[in-house]
Amino acid sequence: MNRESALVWIAGKWRQSTSTEYFHSENPALGEPLPESYPISDWEEVHECIQAGAAAAEILETTPGEQIAAFFEAYAREIEASSDGLVQCANAETGLPITPRLREVELPRTTDQLRQAAKVVRDETWRRPVHDEARNIHSIFAPLGGPIVVMGPNNFPFAFNSIAGGDFAAALVAHNPVIAKANPAHAGTTKLFAEAADRALRKAGLPSATIQLIYDLSKDDGLKLVSHPLTAATGFTGSRMGGMKLKAAADAAGKLIYLEMSSVNPVILLPGVLGERGAALAEEFFVSCTMAAGQFCTNPGFLIVPAIPDGDAFIQVAAQRFASATPGVLLTRSGVNAAKDGVQLLQKYGATVLCGGEPVAGSGFRFQNTVLTITGDRFLQHPKELQTEVFGPVALIVTSADASQTRSILQCIEGSLTGTIYSGDSSADTQAYTQIEPVLRRRVGRLVSNRMPTGVAVSPAMNHGGPFPATAHPGFTSVGLPFSAQRFAALHCYDNVAKANLPPSLRNF
Amino acid sequence: MNRESALVWIAGKWRQSTSTEYFHSENPALGEPLPESYPISDWEEVHECIQAGAAAAEILETTPGEQIAAFFEAYAREIEASSDGLVQCANAETGLPITPRLREVELPRTTDQLRQAAKVVRDETWRRPVHDEARNIHSIFAPLGGPIVVMGPNNFPFAFNSIAGGDFAAALVAHNPVIAKANPAHAGTTKLFAEAADRALRKAGLPSATIQLIYDLSKDDGLKLVSHPLTAATGFTGSRMGGMKLKAAADAAGKLIYLEMSSVNPVILLPGVLGERGAALAEEFFVSCTMAAGQFCTNPGFLIVPAIPDGDAFIQVAAQRFASATPGVLLTRSGVNAAKDGVQLLQKYGATVLCGGEPVAGSGFRFQNTVLTITGDRFLQHPKELQTEVFGPVALIVTSADASQTRSILQCIEGSLTGTIYSGDSSADTQAYTQIEPVLRRRVGRLVSNRMPTGVAVSPAMNHGGPFPATAHPGFTSVGLPFSAQRFAALHCYDNVAKANLPPSLRNF
Repeated sequence: MNRESALVWIAGKWRQSTSTEYFHSENPALGEPLPESYPISDWEEVHECIQAGAAAAEILETTPGEQIAAFFEAYAREIEASSDGLVQCANAETGLPITPRLREVELPRTTDQLRQAAKVVRDETWRRPVHDEARNIHSIFAPLGGPIVVMGPNNFPFAFNSIAGGDFAAALVAHNPVIAKANPAHAGTTKLFAEAADRALRKAGLPSATIQLIYDLSKDDGLKLVSHPLTAATGFTGSRMGGMKLKAAADAAGKLIYLEMSSVNPVILLPGVLGERGAALAEEFFVSCTMAAGQFCTNPGFLIVPAIPDGDAFIQVAAQRFASATPGVLLTRSGVNAAKDGVQLLQKYGATVLCGGEPVAGSGFRFQNTVLTITGDRFLQHPKELQTEVFGPVALIVTSADASQTRSILQCIEGSLTGTIYSGDSSADTQAYTQIEPVLRRRVGRLVSNRMPTGVAVSPAMNHGGPFPATAHPGFTSVGLPFSAQRFAALHCYDNVAKANLPPSLRNF
Repeated sequence: MNRESALVWIAGKWRQSTSTEYFHSENPALGEPLPESYPISDWEEVHECIQAGAAAAEILETTPGEQIAAFFEAYAREIEASSDGLVQCANAETGLPITPRLREVELPRTTDQLRQAAKVVRDETWRRPVHDEARNIHSIFAPLGGPIVVMGPNNFPFAFNSIAGGDFAAALVAHNPVIAKANPAHAGTTKLFAEAADRALRKAGLPSATIQLIYDLSKDDGLKLVSHPLTAATGFTGSRMGGMKLKAAADAAGKLIYLEMSSVNPVILLPGVLGERGAALAEEFFVSCTMAAGQFCTNPGFLIVPAIPDGDAFIQVAAQRFASATPGVLLTRSGVNAAKDGVQLLQKYGATVLCGGEPVAGSGFRFQNTVLTITGDRFLQHPKELQTEVFGPVALIVTSADASQTRSILQCIEGSLTGTIYSGDSSADTQAYTQIEPVLRRRVGRLVSNRMPTGVAVSPAMNHGGPFPATAHPGFTSVGLPFSAQRFAALHCYDNVAKANLPPSLRNF
């Protein structure tokens, strides 16, 4: 056993894992393993997490919201105090730049989310009490009664981290304990968060198993974890293939599971707006699609551009811009292979590579900035394959004959987190918008107008969700409190119950 | 082909089914087939429903709420005008008494629900708009974008009917079309509702495929229906076995499905209250458990009674009361067999029959009013089997040594719609309540105090839902608008969209 390996955090204690299997994170900019090793927890250890989490759940049900709010605030301060270490570690593990991304954008976003969580756990807006005084029936949202498993994605080491991000905060806002499964691509960052969370938990006096951390587990144990009788729910952000396996296991056991999976985020450029400012749009598109090497859930990976000279010019300018820029670092080695496979699949079904399309030679994990095109007619021959999400700086541009064909294309598109229409001032664009919007609207969670979909505001009005397979339930968002917390809440009705026996939040009527 | 068979209602037209398979409803009071026959629709016909429903969904998205409200109100009036036929038909198909049950209780409840639906579709409280004016981000709940399949249960021919009940109303409140699959045990009643709905649809000028009706379909076609790409969601109320098969199919396709399945509805009697009014409680329990021959989702089928003399006396009085009453009519022939199987299963695992336990000889579908008992110790040896729901006038009484054993028993209980505690004025009961309530609370949707769980008020504060397997999502209710409608709604966010392009319900900020 590697005695230098990271400790797991179970039932309030940091301790050597009982596992004999370990993994190393890699530095994606260098393509080299990082020194620390992390255990792949065995089932015994995972099961211990579940049991300790279930015991903590019972305590948290009646823990005053104020105490959880105090934790969130202490945690935000602990994170800020640890920010140097966090950004260094996340940079080494993800290749994301320290500035502005990690230090100036993602870390403040993360602490802001935690402070918004403090506000909501304090004001209890997630509880939505309803009173029927005449009949003495009262209802309110309450915790689910068991631990929530959070499995965060690789692309936001802070803001969607299993132990600091949106799902984590949402679960705890609804007074549920969290079992965090680190994303193995940033295990060290997650450990630093856990250490900060531990200090904040102690300050707030919450149960020691309110938050637990394992770094990884076998696929089979993952299925057992999300379907275990004592597990209340799971929040997963990641690949469609992995998500669907977890979903099948959870569903069969009647367990809640929220998934954010696959999204091509269609962007439609109408003719008028291209005439007005095509070159500027090409730049905007390039920036959005290659930001963080295209590894955003809301990356604009699928454009529909009119088959007109202004559209051709847009494509040409965009492709030049993609080709001339230095490719960013991908998060993982497997991401490079997946991007290559994805591009080849699109090519196989008729798409033409205008630029890029290959891994970048060298030691880091990089893939060329890539633009592919295909005509609307050819797209419509293989719509299923040609909407495959390629996670990276890769976009497919479909040239569309007219608004009617754009509608036909969109009618083949599965659910996405976002859908975007750029329209100009012409009456032709106005008319096309009206034709296209309804078809797009019902396929996406967030409809964006005249700007790129990347950049998810942390706002109560946000929907970071959408129809399957973007998520598994189009009625919920994973960003935007208080609503994101309702995913992890049960509706509790009290019928003919004496006022003294109602929970405190229901007594004021 | 039987030319006398009922017509299906597809895409706005009443027409002969293309199917060659038919079924007859039975009169359960007489045990004889009813004259009408009903088609078991083939896939071609079902598929046509889905397509027509999808087209209607697009229209309903922008249909003014006022128009849907007018439909609900016209429909309620049409139902009232057809009430004689409805109660006669439902009585013949279900054996439920015309008075008071069908005419004075369930029919007014049904029209009241529809009028509440009119109110909510008009006031739009289900839409829950959220505005972030500073960022110009707005969100609102919207229809799901496809037809909702409603499969109602056999036990409420009116109030939970596929084409008149709670799921039907909830789906349409959220501007979704409905494909109703009749419960075959009351196909004729459902047809009468459909005819009334047709007249109301025409008056309101809604799309002709807003509501469609088939009477039955094969099990395989049922799986295809709930998982079809154009189907938006399903609301199912019925058996756990049937529900779980539909759930697996829907889940794998990423389709929403809401299920109300299995619920034993534990009732705990504390020692003090038994001393205060044990005999009155025995009567209350008898009435609730044998009402409608015990065929309520919230039937109190599982009692926990203290192993004390007052508890023994309660059991004795209750058993005498059960034994002396004439058994009611069960809804179906298969229900009699299922009750017999259920009682035998409970006996196999150690329960003792105090009274009843057998089908009643004769032509109608009747099962004896049945009370079984078992000690807490023996229950805890086979808790899984001994919490099997027996749908009918059947209750298992577990005698518990003390509050601690009651907690242990409840900890083995799966999710239920309701959980009830009867407690008296003694401090001992108050203390026991405090010990027991949290364990019960997290296992049920509605916690009831000092009255029986039957009788589900149609109130915004109601929760007719609960943890699995009572339903598949503890955060939703199927009774109580506006919340019941949110099951059938998608969250739509508008980001940077011009005010003129926002939906009307979002423009007033």
